[in-house]
Amino acid sequence: MPRISVEECRQAAQLALEGAGVGTEAAWLQADLLLDAELRGLPSHGFLRLERIIARINNGVADPNARGLHSWRGDGFLSVDGQQGLGPVVAMHAAETAGERARQTGIAVAAIANNNHIGMLAWYAEALAEAGLVSIILTTSEALVHPFGGTTALLGTNPIAIGVPTDTGPFVIDLATSLVSMGEIHDHAHRGAPLAEGWALDADGRPTTDAEAAKNGAIAPFGAAKGYALGLAFELLVTALTGAALGRDVTGTLNAQFKSNKGDVFILIDPLSGQGAALSAYLDTIRQTPPTEGFEQVLIPGERGRARRAERLAAGIELAEPVWATMQRLRDAAKPESRI
Amino acid sequence: MPRISVEECRQAAQLALEGAGVGTEAAWLQADLLLDAELRGLPSHGFLRLERIIARINNGVADPNARGLHSWRGDGFLSVDGQQGLGPVVAMHAAETAGERARQTGIAVAAIANNNHIGMLAWYAEALAEAGLVSIILTTSEALVHPFGGTTALLGTNPIAIGVPTDTGPFVIDLATSLVSMGEIHDHAHRGAPLAEGWALDADGRPTTDAEAAKNGAIAPFGAAKGYALGLAFELLVTALTGAALGRDVTGTLNAQFKSNKGDVFILIDPLSGQGAALSAYLDTIRQTPPTEGFEQVLIPGERGRARRAERLAAGIELAEPVWATMQRLRDAAKPESRI
Repeated sequence: MPRISVEECRQAAQLALEGAGVGTEAAWLQADLLLDAELRGLPSHGFLRLERIIARINNGVADPNARGLHSWRGDGFLSVDGQQGLGPVVAMHAAETAGERARQTGIAVAAIANNNHIGMLAWYAEALAEAGLVSIILTTSEALVHPFGGTTALLGTNPIAIGVPTDTGPFVIDLATSLVSMGEIHDHAHRGAPLAEGWALDADGRPTTDAEAAKNGAIAPFGAAKGYALGLAFELLVTALTGAALGRDVTGTLNAQFKSNKGDVFILIDPLSGQGAALSAYLDTIRQTPPTEGFEQVLIPGERGRARRAERLAAGIELAEPVWATMQRLRDAAKPESRI
Repeated sequence: MPRISVEECRQAAQLALEGAGVGTEAAWLQADLLLDAELRGLPSHGFLRLERIIARINNGVADPNARGLHSWRGDGFLSVDGQQGLGPVVAMHAAETAGERARQTGIAVAAIANNNHIGMLAWYAEALAEAGLVSIILTTSEALVHPFGGTTALLGTNPIAIGVPTDTGPFVIDLATSLVSMGEIHDHAHRGAPLAEGWALDADGRPTTDAEAAKNGAIAPFGAAKGYALGLAFELLVTALTGAALGRDVTGTLNAQFKSNKGDVFILIDPLSGQGAALSAYLDTIRQTPPTEGFEQVLIPGERGRARRAERLAAGIELAEPVWATMQRLRDAAKPESRI
């Protein structure tokens, strides 16, 4: 796999997006979100997505210039029509506006409809925690996950991120309520590797370890009945606040043809309590606790990704050959001389 | 097991609490919370707890008359000093006050410190959803859960409840971030039954299926690394907002001697979007989807408990013999003639 410097990656994505009509600042946000996923070791949310984002712009289902229409439905409730803008452009603008309000009122929520895929949630939670805000972030997706005890994909992967500022930096979790991601299923299919038992069902609702069969089936929720309960609660909560589509009616998160009708919710809280030092000390106690057999140490969620990012910022990113080839093609196609 | 009518149970708890100096309305709330847990089939949060609640009042670590000191730290942020009041009395008063504010601002949070055990969270989430509000409820507890990959109890069981109003009634989830409850461990110990593999560690941090050994050890988080991440995020979030103690410094949720220093957080949102019918239709789709082998049907979280409640409201509640004997003793000790 070619190892590319961070600046070269960033510039390629920036130029490719600008070539598709995205403004400088919006392109920077979208590129930074994809880059951050690569840096943390989440390539499923990285530059792999660039081609689809640009195709969606070209197909008219993503608006490169929209920032979202804001309306306050109460002093703490920001309702956002995403206008089919780019996910991170609309979402970060909404989160910043609601975050500013939370500094006055203590808490505010941004409920976003009609927005494109907002990508890796940790990117937002970390930025908001750096700015001193606690966040709870939810987003829905096309139906990929079966209910506990069910046979059909009826729920999105419905991730949650939570960010909490501490004196030693942001604490951030970011996890899907599915047991694995569809990206992992595709990766296994690509490598011809079998899935673990219990990961997925085939199109007929039967348990399968065949990754090809699982692509048209459904992924299990994480944590059995409890993970299913969480994923379902997030789907309902997001729709209650945003009016987003539900279950199999959700479109536009996995393809380049359809408008996106899922929802995003950002709950932002000014913690006020001055507990940053206590939180850091507690995390340190956990870090230093004896690990169980087979573990080198007890990990704090998010810290491995941040360590990877520090390494890669210096050493560059190893990109899969086809991903880098596509990025170069998109970049070169976007150069002014080729657009005459 | 004796089967007792709902009214006889309620009256016994009410009289026992009033005998300990609790006012009529506060006793009604505390008794109703315990009763509702019995009705739904969660006896670990039912009348079993009555004796400890009264012992805590008698020991001066629970104040039977406190309702909590309220101060608004922003238009949407209600900070509550629980004054060591009874859990449901302080928490329901705070949730109602914050809920009223959420109807004006769209969202509000109540962050409660110094409050006694608030019991089964579904009781609050259901009442708030009945009143038209979306809720996210978190509370912490004494350390019982080990980090994923760790050997020592460093986290509370840190449950979450989410309530969402729908046109066919409240949708409510309520789940601990531990794989099982300490109540289940005690129940296995009592019956001399072995634990399932992976449930718990002994006091030396070694995996055990011996329930007696697990009592002094630690319970696993649910859903491996993801459940651990959620439980840890809830512990940090609650403390960031309330100033509550963390990890092994938390006291007063499992004993009758120490003041309670954990925290409770109620986030309340007026959903505004008129999606109640869409949510109900979606839940119906899930209910009617074909189940997998070994399941009779796909369940919606909370509905089995509600069905049980309907049955028991009519037929009465089967209480464990010692629980009912203790209730009768507490009730009889509280009768005016015995208090002269």
